[in-house]
Amino acid sequence: MSARRQRRARSPDVSGQQFTPIRRAYTPLDILSEDEEDRVHRLSLTLLAETGLKFHSEETWPILEANGCSVDRDTGMTRFPADVVEHFLKLAPAEFTMRARNPANDLHIGNEHIHYGSASSAPNVLDMDRGRRPGTQADFEDLVRLNHMLGTCAFHSGHPVEPIDTPPNTRHLTSAYAWHTLSDKVTRVYAIGRTRVRDSLDMIEIAYGIDRDELRRAPRIHGSINVNSPLVMDAPLIEAAMELAVNGQANVISPVAFAGAMSPITLSGSIIQCNAEAIGVIAFLQMVKAGAPCFYGVLTTPVDMKSGAPAMGVPETVTGTLANGQMARRYKLPQRVMLGSTSNAPDAQGAYESMFSLWAAQLSGAHFVYHAHGWMEGGLTTGFEKTILDSEMIGMMGALRGSLDFSDAEEAMEAIAQVGPGGHFLGTEHTLARYETAFHAPILSDWRPYEFWENAGAPDTAQRANAKWKAMLEAYEEPPMDEGTKEALAEYVARRTEELGDSEI
Amino acid sequence: MSARRQRRARSPDVSGQQFTPIRRAYTPLDILSEDEEDRVHRLSLTLLAETGLKFHSEETWPILEANGCSVDRDTGMTRFPADVVEHFLKLAPAEFTMRARNPANDLHIGNEHIHYGSASSAPNVLDMDRGRRPGTQADFEDLVRLNHMLGTCAFHSGHPVEPIDTPPNTRHLTSAYAWHTLSDKVTRVYAIGRTRVRDSLDMIEIAYGIDRDELRRAPRIHGSINVNSPLVMDAPLIEAAMELAVNGQANVISPVAFAGAMSPITLSGSIIQCNAEAIGVIAFLQMVKAGAPCFYGVLTTPVDMKSGAPAMGVPETVTGTLANGQMARRYKLPQRVMLGSTSNAPDAQGAYESMFSLWAAQLSGAHFVYHAHGWMEGGLTTGFEKTILDSEMIGMMGALRGSLDFSDAEEAMEAIAQVGPGGHFLGTEHTLARYETAFHAPILSDWRPYEFWENAGAPDTAQRANAKWKAMLEAYEEPPMDEGTKEALAEYVARRTEELGDSEI
Repeated sequence: MSARRQRRARSPDVSGQQFTPIRRAYTPLDILSEDEEDRVHRLSLTLLAETGLKFHSEETWPILEANGCSVDRDTGMTRFPADVVEHFLKLAPAEFTMRARNPANDLHIGNEHIHYGSASSAPNVLDMDRGRRPGTQADFEDLVRLNHMLGTCAFHSGHPVEPIDTPPNTRHLTSAYAWHTLSDKVTRVYAIGRTRVRDSLDMIEIAYGIDRDELRRAPRIHGSINVNSPLVMDAPLIEAAMELAVNGQANVISPVAFAGAMSPITLSGSIIQCNAEAIGVIAFLQMVKAGAPCFYGVLTTPVDMKSGAPAMGVPETVTGTLANGQMARRYKLPQRVMLGSTSNAPDAQGAYESMFSLWAAQLSGAHFVYHAHGWMEGGLTTGFEKTILDSEMIGMMGALRGSLDFSDAEEAMEAIAQVGPGGHFLGTEHTLARYETAFHAPILSDWRPYEFWENAGAPDTAQRANAKWKAMLEAYEEPPMDEGTKEALAEYVARRTEELGDSEI
Repeated sequence: MSARRQRRARSPDVSGQQFTPIRRAYTPLDILSEDEEDRVHRLSLTLLAETGLKFHSEETWPILEANGCSVDRDTGMTRFPADVVEHFLKLAPAEFTMRARNPANDLHIGNEHIHYGSASSAPNVLDMDRGRRPGTQADFEDLVRLNHMLGTCAFHSGHPVEPIDTPPNTRHLTSAYAWHTLSDKVTRVYAIGRTRVRDSLDMIEIAYGIDRDELRRAPRIHGSINVNSPLVMDAPLIEAAMELAVNGQANVISPVAFAGAMSPITLSGSIIQCNAEAIGVIAFLQMVKAGAPCFYGVLTTPVDMKSGAPAMGVPETVTGTLANGQMARRYKLPQRVMLGSTSNAPDAQGAYESMFSLWAAQLSGAHFVYHAHGWMEGGLTTGFEKTILDSEMIGMMGALRGSLDFSDAEEAMEAIAQVGPGGHFLGTEHTLARYETAFHAPILSDWRPYEFWENAGAPDTAQRANAKWKAMLEAYEEPPMDEGTKEALAEYVARRTEELGDSEI
């Protein structure tokens, strides 16, 4: 590990910056009045009490009933009394620490910490050399390598691109092997059914060199539990969530209800529905295991009414995200948000949509940001160049400061008096002592004078990003893992692959 | 005028949106503690009292002395007693209305209003067809036409590009003629010497059909008074400012002191110096004319220590702008900020730098934004495509909301109950009644599915912007002006051109 650190320190231009946890600079913005916040809460409780959520997993029913909910056993429709929701919601922790294989990459979740993750789950991958194409294991691994190296990338949100050349029933094994050997940052499990979760937890134990008791003491992995909006909780997801919860691992409760399609077209209506879905499912998981770490993971964004495509990085995303953040704070739950762009190219639109939603994450008080590196096309594609572009923008956000350092104000006053009217500060002692670290250093922005830039071939941002990711992959080195651990992981994958055969799981 | 409005209403896809004043969505962010804010103020007063500002114009000296300042008559170095500065600062108005030739384009300055202007003063112009080149009168006029049509562009910040093919000593005449005949939005005068200001005021009177008394009742034109940082106020600028002030017109007091070059490299030091420069000059202008409208126009941004180029749209710009906004609020002065990018191309970097600084303007509580449409290369170039790109981003900022509309919450609840678990909202009455106006409509973003976009030639954002500005210029129509007024303006230009000959002014 110290060897890797030394290497990083030697090549800052290639690897971006070493991972440094980012803290949000500003107090989150409240955009709901107290009355409106109460109203969202009360209407959500009404929705849960009168309409309810449909739980497809029969396993959940006795737990729901034992804790005061009424379940229609023909349909799974479950009505939650208001006091039940309020009681259980309070049991979810406001803060926790997710342990990475490398302790330097541990993530404190809560308060002013904001962690930007990789892209995840895109079926396609795009780079300027090979164009847009379905993702493969090789692309997946290259993107994991990049995200491992990027100082702005705090964790793996999931498969940065789906490796469609690996079999779906054993993909969780090959993917976990890749994550654990190619990186030592926090990873995700695709929480679809108990089998995937159990295998993933076994592999965490092997990779981290810990036993189940130790595993249960802290979250090391996260699963994203998408609510099938409106109002449906599918069986494989909630069962996976239960498995994660009893083992002390983190669940991201994620109603992704594009306004106008899976939720009302008005932002207020969409927020009420998604809030009800989120707090209903979180309350249920607290019945399963009091204190289970849960993220409030609502996404509120519209579908484009012309194309039917989800619109990411638009004004309504910002407004919705701010309202969601406020509700998460009300419940003292860490907030997961999503970033991304609708753009088909790593161009100006891709940049402004992502930069727009980065501000939404910053101002909403978000803690855990999925899809922050590379998402395009509303999540249908992850781009290599876009990954670098997003890293640059996250670095800029990370360099924002919510206060100013006045410790040298007297020295500055002296420098001004010395320089005097009409002079300049370029050669002064005050400047020379500080110029190397005074300002944020970008990894991608090109500030050369036009003529220099033109003589260098006038490379646009995407072309520079293209050169950057290739240089990074050239320089990539696997983080250290002892051979025994690596072999044990490989053996586990081989054994489980054989056991699973071609069964559906 | 009503004809123009009808035309606009018929062609919203070409002209963007009709000009609609934008209000900021959020309460401005304070990033200085009360103590720090006091400290900036007190150290600024110390700087003005002990070091002072150098006023090169002898005309200013008796005014400064008569109001309690001490002037060194060999150098112009002027020391301001603290109570003098504090007394005069309070006389500047917190709010005023700038009158446009078309009253629909009047600008209320102050409070939550935020007005985004054109680019100004770039020596070069760039478009994708003709490349980068020195600006001409034809480029200047085309950009004035575009800014006139763009719904996001509230006013002309100045020459969007310098028309270098017009003589410098009469450029203020040909430019004012173009502004007044091609547009009816608020314009600027290049406030360098009294002659330019006097001619420009004469032309305002002709264009607006008013006399001097009427002119003096409200600001209709703004000048930008750059402080020659550190601590120097050049004669032609302050004399022009005095001429504007006595005639009730607006002055933007603009220390543009790139940190590390013309001010200390630390943001706190730079802010103290620029604050001192701004409040010193504003206090002086209140001595000249109590109540003269002044903008607090400090720009705090670094020079890139590698290239020496001004860096725009970087994290330090955001932090500096927030601090400047807070000081402007302290003094109850409207704040002028600048937007722009360092990028050489209308690409991803151009977009993220400008979007980054748009948020700085929004969160700093800015009122008047120079260079918001089209600035590139740290101000050395104005781009046709970048103008459209910036308009799109400003439109997004304008669609942000600091609150949610809950008026239909009960209807949304009914829609959710009706749709029920697993349904969708696309065809519901609730959606159909709202889908046309529910979401912000972009002018440039392309949300088509990848395959549709690819079949259309995969146009990137800059290419779409290129098509957009050409279509806009095709559709442009001059705002109405009666022939007599137009002739009178032309006669004035001809007469003054002859009078000025080839004299330097």
